Amino acid sequence: MAYFRSNIEAAAGYVPGFQPENPDVVKLNTNENPYPPSPKVLEALAAIDPEKLRRYPRPLGDEFRKSAAAVLDVKPENIICTNGGDDLLTICLRSFCDGGRPLVYASPTYTLYRVLAQIQDCRVIEVPFTDKGGLQTEQLASQNAGMVIVCNPNAPTGAFIPPAQIEELAQKLNGRSVLLVDEAYVDFAEDNCVSLVKKYNNVIILRSMSKGYSLAGIRFGFGIADESLISGMLKVKDSYNVDTLAQTAANAAIQDRQYFKKNVAGIIEQREWLAQQLRGLGFDVPQSSTNFLFVKPAGGDAETIYKKLCDKNIYVRYFSDPEISERLRITVGTARQNEKLIEALKNIL
Amino acid sequence: MAYFRSNIEAAAGYVPGFQPENPDVVKLNTNENPYPPSPKVLEALAAIDPEKLRRYPRPLGDEFRKSAAAVLDVKPENIICTNGGDDLLTICLRSFCDGGRPLVYASPTYTLYRVLAQIQDCRVIEVPFTDKGGLQTEQLASQNAGMVIVCNPNAPTGAFIPPAQIEELAQKLNGRSVLLVDEAYVDFAEDNCVSLVKKYNNVIILRSMSKGYSLAGIRFGFGIADESLISGMLKVKDSYNVDTLAQTAANAAIQDRQYFKKNVAGIIEQREWLAQQLRGLGFDVPQSSTNFLFVKPAGGDAETIYKKLCDKNIYVRYFSDPEISERLRITVGTARQNEKLIEALKNIL
Repeated sequence: MAYFRSNIEAAAGYVPGFQPENPDVVKLNTNENPYPPSPKVLEALAAIDPEKLRRYPRPLGDEFRKSAAAVLDVKPENIICTNGGDDLLTICLRSFCDGGRPLVYASPTYTLYRVLAQIQDCRVIEVPFTDKGGLQTEQLASQNAGMVIVCNPNAPTGAFIPPAQIEELAQKLNGRSVLLVDEAYVDFAEDNCVSLVKKYNNVIILRSMSKGYSLAGIRFGFGIADESLISGMLKVKDSYNVDTLAQTAANAAIQDRQYFKKNVAGIIEQREWLAQQLRGLGFDVPQSSTNFLFVKPAGGDAETIYKKLCDKNIYVRYFSDPEISERLRITVGTARQNEKLIEALKNIL
Repeated sequence: MAYFRSNIEAAAGYVPGFQPENPDVVKLNTNENPYPPSPKVLEALAAIDPEKLRRYPRPLGDEFRKSAAAVLDVKPENIICTNGGDDLLTICLRSFCDGGRPLVYASPTYTLYRVLAQIQDCRVIEVPFTDKGGLQTEQLASQNAGMVIVCNPNAPTGAFIPPAQIEELAQKLNGRSVLLVDEAYVDFAEDNCVSLVKKYNNVIILRSMSKGYSLAGIRFGFGIADESLISGMLKVKDSYNVDTLAQTAANAAIQDRQYFKKNVAGIIEQREWLAQQLRGLGFDVPQSSTNFLFVKPAGGDAETIYKKLCDKNIYVRYFSDPEISERLRITVGTARQNEKLIEALKNIL
């Protein structure tokens, strides 16, 4: 049977993190926010007119665009709403990459990029970070890319590249290739690259409501870019890609600035506590600008620790990819969850 | 600037039907169901644990798959959940079509097929229906298609092709090309093609919760096919393409069989009343197996009638495409809405 295109036939597909059914587990494996979303989200969902369920959603998510534009100091026309950040990645791959226009990215990074390139049947060029964790700007810029991606802060390492370095890359690529800065985790970082959108018409910023806003369940992401890029990308997105309930929830969440700041501050505090504890247990814990830590156990056997934690109903993320198989990616949980993890690790080690 | 691929640069994009903001209009232009969704949907949404909002959704929509499988007498593994039916179309285009594998469909039909083919950069071959509205089976089957689509019942004509004709096409294509039967409107028809899935491993049935279940606002569609096709398509779909709220709403809706049957019966009754009234006003009204009528005014000037209805805050759909520009597509509304339309038309004519 050869119904499928050969690149799809050959693809393994993306394997999302394990989603255990048991609600009592300590789930630190898929970078969800451990705190609930703003109470304003629940209020907004409860207040939805049932009439809106039977009607098609707003194609462009106008209300969210206005709210996000106000928060980010851009225009609504600079924003595209997407069905999670991953939908924006797919839209960009389909807009900018193909057989003659490769995807280039700084690596190691989010493994979905490679999977999406295979579906789009475009070549992938991975450019390693420097030993100090910086960008190889010249190499990233000289590949005739359809699109270059820098995940910042990066997953799964948690490291943050200073915006000045990203700007240098944007400048080199300008007029030739698009630069996507995947800021899915930027809510936990010290800075961001939104201001580049006003200076460079080739920069796209990816944002997500899944992490800082505790809304992974509703699938809402968005892109920020020059109007010329947004209007082209709107042709590629599905007409009604974001449903009415998700639009309502995302809009309520982004407007509640006070809750957002408290939520993020709580996670950063816990992140620093957890990092300190893990260092105390002999782990190598690089600084993180995200809601997770990418740690290396003193003994080196990440996989065994991962399995022993699973046995105790504590889930963290282990990647078998040899480049990163010595480490575990641990999502920052609530104080209670993080304490449980540290207790369990003390038992295991 | 040449950031975009040339096919995207050249694309016009899909123009969704006008969504007026004023809630008092009579909106018969985008084939939404005029009745609210099942009260069970609202109950299920109100009962959602806020904890579920912060967690990623079930990647495969397991609960919906089970419910739909029971209703349709197939296995959960025969079902793929999608972000509206349009998401399934995109997944199929990306799975089966490319530069060497054209998209073939019976036309005139849903204009999105052509738009999606342009984004996928694959050739389109349109095979007209016969004068009697049947399929040109031989021609559809002999194009070395990556995928053939038959929209059944068809949009915008409303006509229904007997499953035996579709089966003949499935058989001819088997082993070579996939056949997608777009049954977005089948809830209002007298029969369907689901049983073909068990006989032919190349048949995919598209279904939507937007029409018969009054849930256009939540974006939920699904595909039904042989497991071998479903497992390949799952590699192409986004990991978390359907959010938790939509999964919950769709699952509640498909389980409430009694409400569904009543809802659909009400629309069919109104459809027949509206058809009779329009015929009385001199319109040509072909039989419809959907929740809309595709009508031709006696005078012939569909565009003028469309505009005059807009002035009265009554919206129907007019397509400027010369092939179908003599007709209007009118969604069947509530009794009150349909009466208002008939009154308005009596004034206009």
